[in-house]
Amino acid sequence: MTKQLAYLGPEGTFTEAAALTYDSSALLVPYPTITSVATSVDQGNTDIGIVPIENSLEGSVTDTLDLLIHHSNLKIVNEIVIPIEHCLLMKELVSNDLIDVVYSHPQALGQCRHFLEHNFPNAQIVAALSTAAAVEDMINCESPAAAIATRRAATIYGALIASEGIQDNPNNTTRFVILAKEDHEYTGNDKTSVCFSFGEDKPGILYMVLGEFASRKINLAKVESRPNKETLGRYIFLMDLEGHRTDPHLSEALEKVRDNTSFMKILGSYPHYSST
Amino acid sequence: MTKQLAYLGPEGTFTEAAALTYDSSALLVPYPTITSVATSVDQGNTDIGIVPIENSLEGSVTDTLDLLIHHSNLKIVNEIVIPIEHCLLMKELVSNDLIDVVYSHPQALGQCRHFLEHNFPNAQIVAALSTAAAVEDMINCESPAAAIATRRAATIYGALIASEGIQDNPNNTTRFVILAKEDHEYTGNDKTSVCFSFGEDKPGILYMVLGEFASRKINLAKVESRPNKETLGRYIFLMDLEGHRTDPHLSEALEKVRDNTSFMKILGSYPHYSST
Repeated sequence: MTKQLAYLGPEGTFTEAAALTYDSSALLVPYPTITSVATSVDQGNTDIGIVPIENSLEGSVTDTLDLLIHHSNLKIVNEIVIPIEHCLLMKELVSNDLIDVVYSHPQALGQCRHFLEHNFPNAQIVAALSTAAAVEDMINCESPAAAIATRRAATIYGALIASEGIQDNPNNTTRFVILAKEDHEYTGNDKTSVCFSFGEDKPGILYMVLGEFASRKINLAKVESRPNKETLGRYIFLMDLEGHRTDPHLSEALEKVRDNTSFMKILGSYPHYSST
Repeated sequence: MTKQLAYLGPEGTFTEAAALTYDSSALLVPYPTITSVATSVDQGNTDIGIVPIENSLEGSVTDTLDLLIHHSNLKIVNEIVIPIEHCLLMKELVSNDLIDVVYSHPQALGQCRHFLEHNFPNAQIVAALSTAAAVEDMINCESPAAAIATRRAATIYGALIASEGIQDNPNNTTRFVILAKEDHEYTGNDKTSVCFSFGEDKPGILYMVLGEFASRKINLAKVESRPNKETLGRYIFLMDLEGHRTDPHLSEALEKVRDNTSFMKILGSYPHYSST
């Protein structure tokens, strides 16, 4: 049976591109928000879901982190990294200085900041809800407009590509996570994502937790903090650790951490992504 | 002479409210972006600048972090925390179910997510570049529209307040930093913000750095990571530490950290904010 794969839509976004790369045989089902992707998998309407979690320039996608911490018991079952190439789309090709408005998602606008400052110093820069929505906004705009979006969005919406590869930094990649009800079995080349917080603010407690991993030679691939949403200055920490949660060393370290934190949640163990 | 205070405008934003609270006698000068606030202070057009750095629900304002890390040598000279109260604004007061479009800044939309899902399940939610810009978008919208913004924005733009205090979580506060060419002298109740990165990815190196602080009983008020913008999975760490950079203990620890990192920058020492 064909697998149903929920993704953060609409068609023509980078998440759709990641979904196609991850499993080109799946039936792709677009959802309007990161939350609705998770709800779909949780309710069994789709088998798995894919959402962005981190961009190499803009950092974490906080909606995805907050979903995994607070609002979902889905697990990360896999990850995939794809290069992000932004294109400048127009309804008809005109000189940049005739363009009054440029639409895109705030992350894409951020990734093309220098391009915009150089080429569109006088245009109005308008935030859209997705790169695909930006193309729709551009098409509906009465003034001469452009949009920053994917190459595929040009095909889908019948727009023209005025420039390609307009991102400021060539090292622009996004990591996506695949969500499911269960995480991945041990493969021998795994990562484990966890989050935790402390009941009280003791000096050195984060140091102690990191010591549980350092003393067992468990590499920390990522550390991030998110607000606990109760008090400014109190955080939930997220870490990506090398290894599978069933590895004896990692399992033992996680038990120690659980004993010393007021909240801990394993977000999943999954194979370390390799593009080769 | 009246001090000139650059702020992230336009008028009616929360940053303007923070600027007025910080120094009501200053001449307030609005700028359209976080970068342009910093440029103004750097070039001496204004004396100090104020920008948001962290919200208790949404987390860090990454544009401000990236500015301080990569693009500016300004220092943090002070901080201020203000409560965020969102209001629903309309051109004329109508029932919520007659509203087709709701505009606001993505952070404000995120902070009123449940309110929006409950009261506007069928309306189109549209991102604006600021809460003040959202009010302008609402006024210019041909369909029945609403905007989420400050109470003061209603006065400035001649809109009506349909609901007050619509944020999902009552613990909604934002921390702002004041930027200047020099940081603050020692007061006895200080914080120091630093950022650093490692040239190579050695297991346990972050643990070692935290140990320099823990062994000297220096409390870590905040830890955050930002992408280094070169390679996905490589980070610049930001930490807020208790104490002034001239404190002997902190100064010694920072020297040790400098010796063990490939990049370190002190973003400033400044008085710990207290609302009392």
